[in-house]
Amino acid sequence: MNSEFSITILGSSSGIPTSQRNTTAQVLKVHERFFLIDCGEGVQIRLRRNKISFARIDNIFISHLHGDHFFGLFGLVTTFGLLGRKKILNIYSPPGLKKLFRAINEQFKTLSYEINFVEVDFKSSNKIYENKLIQVHTIPMKHRIPAVGYLFSEKQKVRNIKKEAILKYNLTVNEIVAIKEGADLISDDSTVIENSELTTTPPKARSYAFCSDTAYNEPIVPMLRGVDLLYHEATFMQENVKRAVKTGHSTAQEAALMAKNSEVKKLIIGHFSARYKNRIKELESEAKAIFPSTTAVNDGDVFKIT
Amino acid sequence: MNSEFSITILGSSSGIPTSQRNTTAQVLKVHERFFLIDCGEGVQIRLRRNKISFARIDNIFISHLHGDHFFGLFGLVTTFGLLGRKKILNIYSPPGLKKLFRAINEQFKTLSYEINFVEVDFKSSNKIYENKLIQVHTIPMKHRIPAVGYLFSEKQKVRNIKKEAILKYNLTVNEIVAIKEGADLISDDSTVIENSELTTTPPKARSYAFCSDTAYNEPIVPMLRGVDLLYHEATFMQENVKRAVKTGHSTAQEAALMAKNSEVKKLIIGHFSARYKNRIKELESEAKAIFPSTTAVNDGDVFKIT
Repeated sequence: MNSEFSITILGSSSGIPTSQRNTTAQVLKVHERFFLIDCGEGVQIRLRRNKISFARIDNIFISHLHGDHFFGLFGLVTTFGLLGRKKILNIYSPPGLKKLFRAINEQFKTLSYEINFVEVDFKSSNKIYENKLIQVHTIPMKHRIPAVGYLFSEKQKVRNIKKEAILKYNLTVNEIVAIKEGADLISDDSTVIENSELTTTPPKARSYAFCSDTAYNEPIVPMLRGVDLLYHEATFMQENVKRAVKTGHSTAQEAALMAKNSEVKKLIIGHFSARYKNRIKELESEAKAIFPSTTAVNDGDVFKIT
Repeated sequence: MNSEFSITILGSSSGIPTSQRNTTAQVLKVHERFFLIDCGEGVQIRLRRNKISFARIDNIFISHLHGDHFFGLFGLVTTFGLLGRKKILNIYSPPGLKKLFRAINEQFKTLSYEINFVEVDFKSSNKIYENKLIQVHTIPMKHRIPAVGYLFSEKQKVRNIKKEAILKYNLTVNEIVAIKEGADLISDDSTVIENSELTTTPPKARSYAFCSDTAYNEPIVPMLRGVDLLYHEATFMQENVKRAVKTGHSTAQEAALMAKNSEVKKLIIGHFSARYKNRIKELESEAKAIFPSTTAVNDGDVFKIT
């Protein structure tokens, strides 16, 4: 079974794309499914280039309604229709997208499938999605307009039972369920067989947090505590911190501080202002000085969480 | 002086982009100015890659309101604002764009400049734009929704007067103007000096016609007569002619027939269905069999008209 948990960067520029960077879009792969996060212009071509199947995208998470985070939706949704999609598509976002979308879409096309627009609360953290493998919580951002980040957490798997234990002790279904949850086995003669003899430890549940667009926002540190991978916007360098504050964005240094305070395992930064297009290494160094395990992303990059 | 007259292909796929082709967009360079024709998603990155200055685009011509021909407008118009544009932007299109645009744009941004939406008549050919160098006429297309092509014609320049003639005959301003228009010179002793002795022939006026999206449409042949370069959509090959008719598109063979009947100098074809992504040479050959001077375009191609 493919148990991949990875993030692919489809766009890493802020408001204005450059010749090498699209505006924001990412896709999280969880085993065989893809979860699209933001949807800047040009997302379709990036998906194609990374050979990501459109048919395996059922959920799209939009951080906020600035164009560089959702203008790619119109084309993508149209393409899904042209490809004959029948499955429902869920789009999560702060309020307003459905209305915008209807204005655009009614004009020219009847889609072959239904879109379920889910308006998320942008003021507090809530669980907005869950399946067998993961759950998704919103993270309040601090931006000029309502904006949310998203925390994707794998569910902790139950313990793996050893096949030989099933045979040796002739376990019943009920016993197997209890042992997987961590119970010891009490045999017929009242001997206790410890769980650790019967099971192996499953892989640790993995997590990914997406934080963009946001100013430096200390209150969300507890939500990010210990995540395996944090994407945090770093629109500016510290030299432009005033501009960052004014526009509701973060500097590379601030992104690194958030990673450090949250004790995340690794930080990736993006959403770079086009002014730094030839200075990304410098911007990365600024973050690394505070949080060494930092990478400034490029479009097309894939980060696997193992 | 740079007197370039050239077309750059920014997107050449039909409805669905491929990993190598954006949806429709082109830019016509006339001396130092750029005229954008259609505006599919991803147009900004293509413009950047072709080093085309955003500040030199004042006029955008949209063929019709299917998303693959205008979804790139939202991002482009937003970027113009982020770059602090002050100049008015003219957008020509069949009716409906202004309303669509307002629904999208009011939500999140106050632009720093004005957009002048010009609704063009899609039922007959009309002059819709003129400056010192060129004029632009609409060409009615035959599609599922109102659609227009655009004919860009350089104005014929007056004759070039020889400097030595001005000195030799001590010409007045009035005489110079008349001679440039083709008049002979009658000297003081009533000798006739023929215009050809006083002037040289200016370069021939150049022309470019953009025809997309459209089914085979014989009635527009007179409008295309003799143009230097014709872009005609060729969504399908003849093997799919029924689908072409049904969807209001042309085959490569039909595009070539239009070029042949119109006696154009050269034909370029694009707007290829994604189904042909590995068969473009075949599609080109189908057109070449009827009109040898045909090229199937790729994104990034530049065609100079000399």
